[in-house]
Amino acid sequence: MIWFEDLKVGNSTRFGARTVTREEVIDFATQFDPQPFHLDDEAAAKTPFGKLAASGWHTGAMVMRMMVDYWTERQFMGVGSPGLDELRWLKPVFPGDTLSVESRLVDKKESRSRPERGTVWIDVTVRNQHDEPVMTYRSIVMVMKRPA
Amino acid sequence: MIWFEDLKVGNSTRFGARTVTREEVIDFATQFDPQPFHLDDEAAAKTPFGKLAASGWHTGAMVMRMMVDYWTERQFMGVGSPGLDELRWLKPVFPGDTLSVESRLVDKKESRSRPERGTVWIDVTVRNQHDEPVMTYRSIVMVMKRPA
Repeated sequence: MIWFEDLKVGNSTRFGARTVTREEVIDFATQFDPQPFHLDDEAAAKTPFGKLAASGWHTGAMVMRMMVDYWTERQFMGVGSPGLDELRWLKPVFPGDTLSVESRLVDKKESRSRPERGTVWIDVTVRNQHDEPVMTYRSIVMVMKRPA
Repeated sequence: MIWFEDLKVGNSTRFGARTVTREEVIDFATQFDPQPFHLDDEAAAKTPFGKLAASGWHTGAMVMRMMVDYWTERQFMGVGSPGLDELRWLKPVFPGDTLSVESRLVDKKESRSRPERGTVWIDVTVRNQHDEPVMTYRSIVMVMKRPA
């Protein structure tokens, strides 16, 4: 298991390779974000997207899945997140793109009220197959401390 | 149609009533966020969630859907979002909860580089059926100006 004490500020890692399909872009948008540029190439051509692009919430969800898969392999278990800061969707994500994640631990603090836990801050950069950043944010994650 | 010029700083509105089902919580988590507390009551009981709770990305996606439905009814068309700030998941969202949205326009600016567009900042508060805030964030949305 990886605990709060094992996480070092400054450490970074790259992982994931998720190829986005047209079917799942349209399926997610139909359920959660039915704006024209997430559903249809012709409608998207009239907008800054230019062609069918994934919902930003879909990109966030795909990144979450890559993170959970990475953490699970390494037996790291977060216990939830109080939130995130400065999320930016920098470029559209198109069907056929392959997304990967760079994650860097930028800060950590023990909890005052909950001695069994700590909080870590993680800068997340998501890139496409051209190595262009498509999304960035700072994630806040609660982590268990090593049992005494 | 509602254009950039029609949106007034300080205006706020409440809308939406989406009841969260156990089936969709588990379905979303299985696809995008398979952490134990989003999949199973027993595993969640050992965590700060206490019982099965929705992925924060799922809550965000459900809120996006309520916003798109509200905008579409009023013929408001955003042309995408550069991001959001200070997203906080304040309380867990459980199956059976009914979510609603309060949205308040806090700032607007014309684009310098794109004379046909402007940007608006919207404070979003999501509440459950007990009127407790479960999620807040500040959304940034690009909006078309009225054609000359």
